[in-house]
Amino acid sequence: MSASSNWFTEQHVSSGSAIGYRITGKLAEEQTPFQHIEIYATTDWGNLMVIDGCTMLTTRDNFLYHEMMTHPVLYTHAAPKNIAIIGGGDCGTLREVLKHPEVESVVQIDIDERVTRLAEKYFPELCESNADPRAQLLFDDGIKYMADAAPASLDVVIVDSTDPVGPAEGLFNAKFYASCFRALRAGGILIQQSESPLVLLDLIKSMHKEMRGVGFAATRTLPFPQPCYPTGWWSCTMARKGAPFDGFREHDAANKPFATRYYNAGIHRGALAEPEFMRAALGT
Amino acid sequence: MSASSNWFTEQHVSSGSAIGYRITGKLAEEQTPFQHIEIYATTDWGNLMVIDGCTMLTTRDNFLYHEMMTHPVLYTHAAPKNIAIIGGGDCGTLREVLKHPEVESVVQIDIDERVTRLAEKYFPELCESNADPRAQLLFDDGIKYMADAAPASLDVVIVDSTDPVGPAEGLFNAKFYASCFRALRAGGILIQQSESPLVLLDLIKSMHKEMRGVGFAATRTLPFPQPCYPTGWWSCTMARKGAPFDGFREHDAANKPFATRYYNAGIHRGALAEPEFMRAALGT
Repeated sequence: MSASSNWFTEQHVSSGSAIGYRITGKLAEEQTPFQHIEIYATTDWGNLMVIDGCTMLTTRDNFLYHEMMTHPVLYTHAAPKNIAIIGGGDCGTLREVLKHPEVESVVQIDIDERVTRLAEKYFPELCESNADPRAQLLFDDGIKYMADAAPASLDVVIVDSTDPVGPAEGLFNAKFYASCFRALRAGGILIQQSESPLVLLDLIKSMHKEMRGVGFAATRTLPFPQPCYPTGWWSCTMARKGAPFDGFREHDAANKPFATRYYNAGIHRGALAEPEFMRAALGT
Repeated sequence: MSASSNWFTEQHVSSGSAIGYRITGKLAEEQTPFQHIEIYATTDWGNLMVIDGCTMLTTRDNFLYHEMMTHPVLYTHAAPKNIAIIGGGDCGTLREVLKHPEVESVVQIDIDERVTRLAEKYFPELCESNADPRAQLLFDDGIKYMADAAPASLDVVIVDSTDPVGPAEGLFNAKFYASCFRALRAGGILIQQSESPLVLLDLIKSMHKEMRGVGFAATRTLPFPQPCYPTGWWSCTMARKGAPFDGFREHDAANKPFATRYYNAGIHRGALAEPEFMRAALGT
């Protein structure tokens, strides 16, 4: 990581690649009990949030990630009413979930309240639905929350976390997946951000294996573009309880009662088409 | 552009973003009559070719670009027999085109022979079909070649060029498109790399307008991931002579007689689904 000569660049050591943005200044910097947070102003990408040296989001391109972490899973579930978001402190995922009128409750559990407070200040558009009466914001340990959740109480669990190191490490293993499985109703879906399909395919393979190992009936990885993350290509992985995947509510997606910038029914179908190298690696 | 501390980083000034690779050394550097070419060895991405400071390709991720510049257009055309590639000096596009058994001839016209000679040495896998009897490699001005091409002599023209500045500037305007239009048979298709859909949507809009302006009946932009190019998200734009697009040869694509790493029939369908912001901007 370096922030010199008016560029902030994240050097992603494990893949030997780097992504950077031209910045005009640092807007905030905090060491919280959990992590180091920086906010920069950029010339072309709006504001930029960095946690522990890793780019989390920019104003300009976060719509890709937030729409793909929410609308595919919500249009895959037959009737998503009760949702939990683990992580997601910038509230962009929460905002997208609340666009679905059939959703009755969303609880967001992020361990670090400072992420949300900084998002309210520097990414206010992502927080515009935080006062929705269906939303509850908790600042707590998401792993413990899911371990304690009432059985069969949720329709969808969205894991919108940082990379599988540090605070988020415990979100990528069988013990956590078993908690999610128990908390979901039959037909319920767990969806988790699953890193770059090009450089972290081994992690994705292991997620599929662990998710199926705790009882999920089917798993599926959807790739999507995300310029600010390593390789600019990202993915989310879904696991369904009780039954295999059987398409999605295409008619509802094609007639969605809200605006998006990336997602539509065609994009959803497209994201379900796995590249050849993923099919070969995942055996799908 | 900087190549210090063992990282080569391309700073893309017009979008305020940068992409870099960790390098182990410089393998070649040449000033040709047309451009400045560098080849680096990287830790994780194989070899890296840079022209005039811009990343052209890496060993690891060029399959995405080369497959998407060829298989969608060839499976859209009913019977592609005679093909021209403008640019494409690394020969990766040529290799993919020659995988199609129905192709009878491919002429590749790149202005700079040194790109091909360096590709033969540092990207030999891309040049493995250069001796195919159906292939002809010319080192000449692609704009002049298309202006002089016999009318109605080609089925597909693939414009695999650098950015629309410098040597490639003349490949992004009505005059060049008119040459392509005249050289194509009825039903023929022009396909051109069309930069990042996120940051160069205005260029894409103008390409659609200019292509239709010279007589093409329909135009279509297909986005795809390409980690080494600015924003990691790229696109190609197709224009068809004589008739609107009417799907593609899905059965043939699903039964392709060759291996790919990204492309398949599902990926092709997915690439035809335009994101909401593109539909809004392009009026499609």
